[in-house]
Amino acid sequence: MPRYALKIEYNGAPFAGWQRQAQGLPSVQGAVEAALARLEPGPHTIAAAGRTDAGVHGWGQVATVDLTRDWQPFRLSEALNFHLRPAPVAILAVARVADDFHARFSAIERRYLFRLIERRAPLTHDAGLAWRVQNRLDVQAMRDGAAHLIGLHDFTTFRSTLCQAKSPVKTLDEIGIEEMPYPGGREIRFTLRARSFLHNQVRSIVGTLERVGAGSWTAADVKSALEARDRAACGPVCPPDGLYLTGVGYPVEVF
Amino acid sequence: MPRYALKIEYNGAPFAGWQRQAQGLPSVQGAVEAALARLEPGPHTIAAAGRTDAGVHGWGQVATVDLTRDWQPFRLSEALNFHLRPAPVAILAVARVADDFHARFSAIERRYLFRLIERRAPLTHDAGLAWRVQNRLDVQAMRDGAAHLIGLHDFTTFRSTLCQAKSPVKTLDEIGIEEMPYPGGREIRFTLRARSFLHNQVRSIVGTLERVGAGSWTAADVKSALEARDRAACGPVCPPDGLYLTGVGYPVEVF
Repeated sequence: MPRYALKIEYNGAPFAGWQRQAQGLPSVQGAVEAALARLEPGPHTIAAAGRTDAGVHGWGQVATVDLTRDWQPFRLSEALNFHLRPAPVAILAVARVADDFHARFSAIERRYLFRLIERRAPLTHDAGLAWRVQNRLDVQAMRDGAAHLIGLHDFTTFRSTLCQAKSPVKTLDEIGIEEMPYPGGREIRFTLRARSFLHNQVRSIVGTLERVGAGSWTAADVKSALEARDRAACGPVCPPDGLYLTGVGYPVEVF
Repeated sequence: MPRYALKIEYNGAPFAGWQRQAQGLPSVQGAVEAALARLEPGPHTIAAAGRTDAGVHGWGQVATVDLTRDWQPFRLSEALNFHLRPAPVAILAVARVADDFHARFSAIERRYLFRLIERRAPLTHDAGLAWRVQNRLDVQAMRDGAAHLIGLHDFTTFRSTLCQAKSPVKTLDEIGIEEMPYPGGREIRFTLRARSFLHNQVRSIVGTLERVGAGSWTAADVKSALEARDRAACGPVCPPDGLYLTGVGYPVEVF
């Protein structure tokens, strides 16, 4: 059976998360599998690079699926997009891949974006698409705090107690923090890059850095929290609204 | 009675337009006036710089209102935002202005942004917030076409037959066309600037330029259409989804 990689974009707001839910709650995986079933008899099970939580968005999620027919990739993406409507899920690209390629296990890098909007007024166009913070944040202090997290560390403090990863030791390659104008305030974008992330790691890190930006934590407190290797030492986990899985890296270009 | 200027952001999707509707349809004006009535007994009538159509968004709309109380501007914006929820309307700033200041008649410049996204897949995060075009567009050809529209012209071709402006002669100061990356395609942003615009002028211009980009019109055809001074010579009016009133200019800084 030919294997295909799908590059998927979605608005996470109406979904209980990426993963198909036993209780029949809406999931992104379920939406894509249902669209696949309109093309070839199922059931289909697709594997994704990152199993995003409820409310988290995809801008470059990658999933693999085995199909019976030999689909021309462009036609497969067009057909899936037709059947996905009106769900806020879109197939951005399809590629035929080798039989040993796996969206999750072949991945060597995940990239996340977190959009924080600093302003007093509620969000209108970006409601559900960014985290609004009403207090003024010190970007340089957040950068100083983030610097302590770069590299190989035991991230027990920054992982959910539900995390199923075998080890809390991960290498965080990058935390970029950039600011840009936004109507009525400004936007602060966090970009994180690692081979893989622990459950809730990005939201735990951004939530903690926000406390540093607000002045209630010092940059050094981030180092102490990391070294505590204790979930209780983490700052507040921030909401999912601003989080996007923006891309997945593989040893070879897929799309 | 002290007069206040409000800087307003809104998602136009759920509204029948800026203007209060006789039939009780939801309008942005109606939402703001209802919030004002929670603060001081009404009825209130607010005047806006641009009466945007159904589905058109605001990122920097300006309106004026007379109130009885002497409000501290920041407190007024906070109180209005509280009462506006959950409508996708937000007050970005409030300023106390002179009694002869009028949001519409004092304005000397309006700025609009039109977001066009060129890609095959439907939009997810930006559904309703941009116009998706599936065919490939030639940006340079669109710039060449737009150049014919800059300056003082009779814009009869590019105004709605419902337009109530006394004269179709307007000066268009700028049409900027910029492209930027977008997942699965690219985004093309049109920025237009003029003292004032005719009804449907921006959407008539962008819809016509899209035809140039697609190759079914030449840049010179835009000049012929303008010179025809005939509404029937216009290209298709594009949808409101991508249109934003981004700002209004006054002889003095208001906010």
